[in-house]
Amino acid sequence: MSRRAFRPIEGGVCAPAGFRAAGVAAGIKKNGKLDLALVVSERPCAWAGAFTTNAVKAAPVLFNLALPRARPVGGIVANSGNANACTGTRGLRDAGRMETLARRIAGKGGAPFLVASTGRIGDLLPMAKIGDGIRAAADRLAREDLACARAIMTTDTFPKRAAAEIRVAGRAVRLGGMTKGAGMICPGMSRTGRRPAPHATMLAFLTTDADISSALLQRCLDRAVARSFNRISVDGDMSTNDTVAILANGASGAPALRAGARALADFQEALDDIALRLAQMIVKDGEGITKVVTLVVEGAASRADAERAARAIGNSFLVKTSWCGEDPNWGRLFDAAGYSGARVNPANLSARYDGVPLLLRSRVVAANVGRVRAILKKPAFTLRCGLGAGRFSSVFYTTDLTEKTVELNKGE
Amino acid sequence: MSRRAFRPIEGGVCAPAGFRAAGVAAGIKKNGKLDLALVVSERPCAWAGAFTTNAVKAAPVLFNLALPRARPVGGIVANSGNANACTGTRGLRDAGRMETLARRIAGKGGAPFLVASTGRIGDLLPMAKIGDGIRAAADRLAREDLACARAIMTTDTFPKRAAAEIRVAGRAVRLGGMTKGAGMICPGMSRTGRRPAPHATMLAFLTTDADISSALLQRCLDRAVARSFNRISVDGDMSTNDTVAILANGASGAPALRAGARALADFQEALDDIALRLAQMIVKDGEGITKVVTLVVEGAASRADAERAARAIGNSFLVKTSWCGEDPNWGRLFDAAGYSGARVNPANLSARYDGVPLLLRSRVVAANVGRVRAILKKPAFTLRCGLGAGRFSSVFYTTDLTEKTVELNKGE
Repeated sequence: MSRRAFRPIEGGVCAPAGFRAAGVAAGIKKNGKLDLALVVSERPCAWAGAFTTNAVKAAPVLFNLALPRARPVGGIVANSGNANACTGTRGLRDAGRMETLARRIAGKGGAPFLVASTGRIGDLLPMAKIGDGIRAAADRLAREDLACARAIMTTDTFPKRAAAEIRVAGRAVRLGGMTKGAGMICPGMSRTGRRPAPHATMLAFLTTDADISSALLQRCLDRAVARSFNRISVDGDMSTNDTVAILANGASGAPALRAGARALADFQEALDDIALRLAQMIVKDGEGITKVVTLVVEGAASRADAERAARAIGNSFLVKTSWCGEDPNWGRLFDAAGYSGARVNPANLSARYDGVPLLLRSRVVAANVGRVRAILKKPAFTLRCGLGAGRFSSVFYTTDLTEKTVELNKGE
Repeated sequence: MSRRAFRPIEGGVCAPAGFRAAGVAAGIKKNGKLDLALVVSERPCAWAGAFTTNAVKAAPVLFNLALPRARPVGGIVANSGNANACTGTRGLRDAGRMETLARRIAGKGGAPFLVASTGRIGDLLPMAKIGDGIRAAADRLAREDLACARAIMTTDTFPKRAAAEIRVAGRAVRLGGMTKGAGMICPGMSRTGRRPAPHATMLAFLTTDADISSALLQRCLDRAVARSFNRISVDGDMSTNDTVAILANGASGAPALRAGARALADFQEALDDIALRLAQMIVKDGEGITKVVTLVVEGAASRADAERAARAIGNSFLVKTSWCGEDPNWGRLFDAAGYSGARVNPANLSARYDGVPLLLRSRVVAANVGRVRAILKKPAFTLRCGLGAGRFSSVFYTTDLTEKTVELNKGE
């Protein structure tokens, strides 16, 4: 086990210096819960983002994609309860008005804000409520981010935050973040919103007080997203709104991070960790699920094959329902791998549950069936599927599919 | 409405002259139901087939693929209760033994038989029971195919048969068929079992007393499959065992069908109709479903785009659960179209339920919401989704997804 370059710490987007946050109930959600979130930096931030590759992109995604990546931003404004997706030119105008209000009221007219929305697709934003909410949130900005993390929740059952600290030239540099699930979760984001990307609304907002250029920050974010948010699935449906954004304000006072430096590697490691922890929280809070499965596909002929097979297995309706039934139905695993497009060697398949082999060289290890059944009763387990076709592997974080998942998704 | 070239008739694989069938309970299924099916022709048959494009192919599929397409066959032997898939070299040997027994006992040692299996993946065939079953079935061969259609059922709730008659040079030429669903239904078959193919175990056996070459028969089958079995989905999982086979014995006494002739066009029309009727019966009998949806994607930039979007919408977990909830959640339709890879024009989307527009030029027709809600309560409806990107269209037959579907698939 190698030494970790970072130290996990408490909190979320306000863990790094120079960020304030707020979350208020603006009445966008009918149930009166928190639904408007603000994250504001005391100084302009380098930023980077990853956006849904869905051809139908929500208005706030289109708005952010149109912002020059090298231009600093002042913060983020987000709402839950309405996705502002499939809302045409009116929706685009509303996203722009939401940004203008946040910039003028919370950002004192400085650098532009990033915008995000999540909720039902197809309804127009209630702009009066959005405006009132931004004013109320701006009044409550503080070095406390729990209400902010709650305000982006939709069907989530708990707020999701993570933070970490590294040392750069003797000074503390911090990273923090928050995210939300819990439905329409199968992100496949890229920095341009264009394919190909390795493939909820899933929103994740990250902050850091590191001093880093937007180009370098984007490279770090691309890697972190590829290893975390783009490797999860709950229901297999990629949202119109998926957004990950990171803001770097340099408030730590540590020297700037440079390509090739040890400090940048430490930063990347901490960012990877936060992104993965947040992504795993989304999976754990999937709508109605009872199992979290870390799915490792190995023995693939290429990395692309490993990812393809992992995605097919992790999204298969029949695989996911068999997990719900705690049935080690390995035939369904390899049926899904087989139709994924990946090369599969039917004579050399393997399946291991928490290290216990159920299948080796395509033969059932009868002595282990009982142990594997016991592992399937656990709320989380690791399943390794060997395709017998090469030496590449890939990991995917997924869930079972239950009657409750169906019930929760019948209406919205 | 153009005149149909064929006349629907009663019955299944024994509707054409010269075919006999039987179905028996061989004890392969634990519940004692019919599980071994035989179809035997009085004379050698030209044949054609379409097989799963899953890289993990069941042993009987591999066996059939290895048979020369131009060599006549004598009949079909099939079992339910066990898929003989993921069973290695032993499984291949078992498929071969099953064929040998059927050919010797039921076919009197003549032309080879086609083989098919359906049921749980990964268990070895109980060969003693298969042998006894073939002997019992051979004793009961008759001009009656209902027991045979029942013997290939797994979770199906009703047997599925269809037949039709055309006139060729004044003589009756008949086609008949049977099929089974009702789980692992998302076929994507091709004549070679290799991709690409527009993408249950789904088994379908068709017969005809037409006189037709195997090459011409294959062309007719390819077209019929592309318009029927390859356009349905229940759960989105393509099986290891999907098989469609057609046998032509020439017993009608009508002149041979030739390329370009009017009689061949009539034959194709009748075959298309039978294949579509059988495919629709599978959808209707999907495990736990409450809605049958005829999904038409139109306004696509290409035929491939139309098919891609139709498949994504028809397989989307969130779309299917919203149908179950009778919620006209059109945002989910276009979310799925958006991640399908098809070109979509978000400014010009449309959605019509049984002809009633809910969405036109991306705007909700508020006056129609009530009527559309009423249509969604029906057990079957037609949904037309316009992508606003071109002039191509495609149809797909699919279902909702219910708590019951999950419950039925938790174990097997």
